[in-house]
Amino acid sequence: MILAPRKQGEPTVVVGLMSGTSLDGIDAAIVRIHGSGLTASAELLHYYSRSYEPEFRRRLQELCGTEHSSSAAVCSMNAYLGYRFGEAVLEAIADAGMRIEDVDLVSSHGQTIWHLPVAEPDDPYSTPSTLQIGDISVIAKLTGLPVVGDFRPADMAVGGQGAPFAPYGDLILFRHHERGRLLQNVGGIGNCTALPAGAGPSEVLAFDTGPGNMVIDAVVHALSEGRLSYDEGGKWAAQGKPDQALLDEMMSHAYFRTPPPKSTGRELFGQPYAASFLKAASARGLSDEDIVATATAFTAASIADSYERYVFPRVAIAEVIVTGGGAHNRTLLHMLSERLPGQKVMTSAELGWNDDAKEAVIFALLGNDFVHGVPNNLPAATGALRPTVMGKLALP
Amino acid sequence: MILAPRKQGEPTVVVGLMSGTSLDGIDAAIVRIHGSGLTASAELLHYYSRSYEPEFRRRLQELCGTEHSSSAAVCSMNAYLGYRFGEAVLEAIADAGMRIEDVDLVSSHGQTIWHLPVAEPDDPYSTPSTLQIGDISVIAKLTGLPVVGDFRPADMAVGGQGAPFAPYGDLILFRHHERGRLLQNVGGIGNCTALPAGAGPSEVLAFDTGPGNMVIDAVVHALSEGRLSYDEGGKWAAQGKPDQALLDEMMSHAYFRTPPPKSTGRELFGQPYAASFLKAASARGLSDEDIVATATAFTAASIADSYERYVFPRVAIAEVIVTGGGAHNRTLLHMLSERLPGQKVMTSAELGWNDDAKEAVIFALLGNDFVHGVPNNLPAATGALRPTVMGKLALP
Repeated sequence: MILAPRKQGEPTVVVGLMSGTSLDGIDAAIVRIHGSGLTASAELLHYYSRSYEPEFRRRLQELCGTEHSSSAAVCSMNAYLGYRFGEAVLEAIADAGMRIEDVDLVSSHGQTIWHLPVAEPDDPYSTPSTLQIGDISVIAKLTGLPVVGDFRPADMAVGGQGAPFAPYGDLILFRHHERGRLLQNVGGIGNCTALPAGAGPSEVLAFDTGPGNMVIDAVVHALSEGRLSYDEGGKWAAQGKPDQALLDEMMSHAYFRTPPPKSTGRELFGQPYAASFLKAASARGLSDEDIVATATAFTAASIADSYERYVFPRVAIAEVIVTGGGAHNRTLLHMLSERLPGQKVMTSAELGWNDDAKEAVIFALLGNDFVHGVPNNLPAATGALRPTVMGKLALP
Repeated sequence: MILAPRKQGEPTVVVGLMSGTSLDGIDAAIVRIHGSGLTASAELLHYYSRSYEPEFRRRLQELCGTEHSSSAAVCSMNAYLGYRFGEAVLEAIADAGMRIEDVDLVSSHGQTIWHLPVAEPDDPYSTPSTLQIGDISVIAKLTGLPVVGDFRPADMAVGGQGAPFAPYGDLILFRHHERGRLLQNVGGIGNCTALPAGAGPSEVLAFDTGPGNMVIDAVVHALSEGRLSYDEGGKWAAQGKPDQALLDEMMSHAYFRTPPPKSTGRELFGQPYAASFLKAASARGLSDEDIVATATAFTAASIADSYERYVFPRVAIAEVIVTGGGAHNRTLLHMLSERLPGQKVMTSAELGWNDDAKEAVIFALLGNDFVHGVPNNLPAATGALRPTVMGKLALP
């Protein structure tokens, strides 16, 4: 163990911090962890969330591009975000009715402002790399707690993609000794982690299934003329009926015939895709309800199809656990259940997990592993050549 | 102690890495350290140095500006430099005839690409900050050694300027129990550390004395029409005679009447200053030799004058120890001796110290302190509100 525990044999209390690529704010999860590594167990004590103000979000967006970013901007924002993260830790602890002395460690993902899994071929200095800011020394000095953070570069330094990390948390939090489980996150993109019953770390299979809420949200935004940003509870889709011919056409996309490992994003299923879908749908004279229903069915079909092709032939799955924003879309859940008659489809909330807190909990686990000196990457998910201890430690 | 020592009670062997703002290359010092903090003692086992290729230097220069830098460039170069630093560690160890197992730790300064001691007043998100790149996780995974680095942000997080660090090393390496000492570094800028006999950490006085080699080098470069970049050994200056009237005029600069703490750089004594000095000198009809002699006398006078005004009234000084490139300028040393009749002027080489290795040795000390959990900033030099443990740790 790198840092001596507060009390020998006692659990570690970790504040996990997550600030996602959507740039919408900070999540903090106060977690009590027994043990470390794959046999750790975690109990969520408190969940805290704060949104960023629009002007700050705009500045972060600039930092995530090449036009308005600079070394000067990275330097200043790295420190500034450290203070924001540190304040979030202090507020979360106060909100929980806890004291600083009740906490052992902070573990912070940081804000990703660039991610380059493959080097640019025409530049000899270009290197696979990833950049998370929000200085951990600033967090440590502000909170008076040791801080672990900046995990992803270590996975890349041993040949991994530095992502995804969710499967590691899925394995620890959701693996079942008797039942094969599929964790299906439905964020902008859909991604799944298949966990065979009693899975070991090398048996995990994780990949992006295709669109999550991305196409549904874009369609709802367009059809509501900007009034709605998502189909709350899947109510709009529930009023319509998917167009099977259009759905078949959408499912002919080459991505769905590409075997894992694979990942996707806005490049394939972003605004241009949604616009051409809307064009095709109105050419067929579909009603707004039917269009939303078809977009929702597309997500459900792409998930179920991925399982049929790439998961079920290899792994027996009894339960599909849906997480992310899509877990609130009842129409999507219903469609998924219909397409997966052999599995029980449920949400992580039904298992007693605060879904919004999950990512922050995972970073609490990763930080706890660091201070125990235990490898915390999952080569089966990231493609790393070996397990390694990811993270950096700053002292209070 | 954060990391368990290789063998209890044995010294720590640390590879200190320095990559300076001149962007010219990497220095590595393999140092055997007994103890930690202000009572540490250090023995230099091996010194290694490699220059950067011109194209790489150009890319680093771009990164140190706002026009061609970006988050993408910072991200990629952070990882790339990590590999360069890691390779330097492996080469230094091999050069020394040592094995990886003989080394306990790497401690890296990193490459400063931005330093903002005071926030921009018109930007609410601007924050005092400093950015050193060369990812320590990359170094750790490549070398198989634990790595400490990224020290400066921690000092700024407790209210310091994140610089200078040299006085901390000066205190440990050069403080004398019976004799007051002045460490005078003559790089581009001149800076001094006054160490009273048996000084404690709060008794250290450090500030920039004014120009070091900056004006001399610029004048030599211009008068030699670009053939020479510096006055080797002070030979050119030795052939001339300083012009006292011009020197008096130069010494009337307001910087020399500003009491410490103070620091300066290219803004005051860079190219524009050298150009106007050359203009004034040729208006007086001075020979080239006399011009170089006057520029050299300017550095000597500004150093001695700083001592008379701000050091000698507060601290009894017996010895002045000159380090940096200026320590090789015999004319400068001679002029300094003449102006300081009450002190013995010598070079650090005369004390048995490899002057080029000094900065890398200091970073070895700082990293050794981190793994001992010992504060390693010097508030008297940086202006920090309190002593604190600077640095971040990555595991192999």
